[in-house]
Amino acid sequence: MVSLGILLAADGLAKMGAAIGAGFAAIGAGIGIGQIGRNAMDAIARQPEVVGEIRSNMIIMAALVEGVALFAVVVAVLALFVG
Amino acid sequence: MVSLGILLAADGLAKMGAAIGAGFAAIGAGIGIGQIGRNAMDAIARQPEVVGEIRSNMIIMAALVEGVALFAVVVAVLALFVG
Amino acid sequence: MVSLGILLAADGLAKMGAAIGAGFAAIGAGIGIGQIGRNAMDAIARQPEVVGEIRSNMIIMAALVEGVALFAVVVAVLALFVG
Amino acid sequence: MVSLGILLAADGLAKMGAAIGAGFAAIGAGIGIGQIGRNAMDAIARQPEVVGEIRSNMIIMAALVEGVALFAVVVAVLALFVG
Amino acid sequence: MVSLGILLAADGLAKMGAAIGAGFAAIGAGIGIGQIGRNAMDAIARQPEVVGEIRSNMIIMAALVEGVALFAVVVAVLALFVG
Repeated sequence: MVSLGILLAADGLAKMGAAIGAGFAAIGAGIGIGQIGRNAMDAIARQPEVVGEIRSNMIIMAALVEGVALFAVVVAVLALFVG
Repeated sequence: MVSLGILLAADGLAKMGAAIGAGFAAIGAGIGIGQIGRNAMDAIARQPEVVGEIRSNMIIMAALVEGVALFAVVVAVLALFVG
Repeated sequence: MVSLGILLAADGLAKMGAAIGAGFAAIGAGIGIGQIGRNAMDAIARQPEVVGEIRSNMIIMAALVEGVALFAVVVAVLALFVG
Repeated sequence: MVSLGILLAADGLAKMGAAIGAGFAAIGAGIGIGQIGRNAMDAIARQPEVVGEIRSNMIIMAALVEGVALFAVVVAVLALFVG
Repeated sequence: MVSLGILLAADGLAKMGAAIGAGFAAIGAGIGIGQIGRNAMDAIARQPEVVGEIRSNMIIMAALVEGVALFAVVVAVLALFVG
């Protein structure tokens, strides 16, 4: 019975880590995509005629941040369900 | 009885992590969407004639941040109910 | 039975670390790629005629950050699955 | 049996540290390469005619940061696998 | 048997510290080399004719940061392997 109890305590630690890790990933996405989008707004206001170039480069960079952040959230989901 | 006690302590850890993780996700969304929206306001004030372009790009970037943040909150909800 | 219980508690620690570590990697990618993308937007708005040069250098630097961040997420996945 | 259990608990600590350490290395790479790449974008926009010089120096500095960050991730992998 | 188990638990603590310490070293290198490289880019854009001077001084300072950071990572490796 003792081992079963500790097993469930371990489960609690894993759940705590998964939720906090997913939150950190959202902070990472916010910092990254926020900065890119912020200055893209300025750039469009300054040079509206190259909005196509700005948009395509903006989406390339945002996709790189988004990829890592989503991967990190998936790792958090794995930490919940694996094992 | 000991194992039941540890089981309930584990449950507390999971709940604590879920609430804190959801809070971090909200911080991430705030940092990201806040910065994008902030400079979008400036951009519209500077070039009101391209407001359509600014709005569409603003929404694309905010949606990317929102996606990760909502996913992180869903992981926090899972940490509460799974298991 | 006690040893089995502690083994599973260790598993909980590893899962917690994996999710939080992956979140830190996403924060790193956000800080790095966010800053590069932010000023690339400004640079395109300032010199739209050298957008090719800006884009290629932007992607070189973003790839360096992305490489370390993805490697760190892979280490987090390894921490989940390595036995 | 008790010693085997504690051995495995130690394994959990090592895995937690490896994932978190790799995440810190990614934050380091993000801070370093992000700042270098950020101002390289500005420099290219300001002096497009010396883009070759800017690119070569940018890559030298980014490689120095990348070297330490990748080495740190390798140490994290070693912490996972060294017995 | 119990003392052997606790000895091995100490091994886990050492591995955790090694990986996290190496990550901190990478953060240090990122902060230091990032700031040096950032302003070196500005300096090259401002005075392209003294790029040789800027490069040599940039590398001297970056090497000083790199030396400490690599040494710290080597200490982390020693913490893994020294018995």
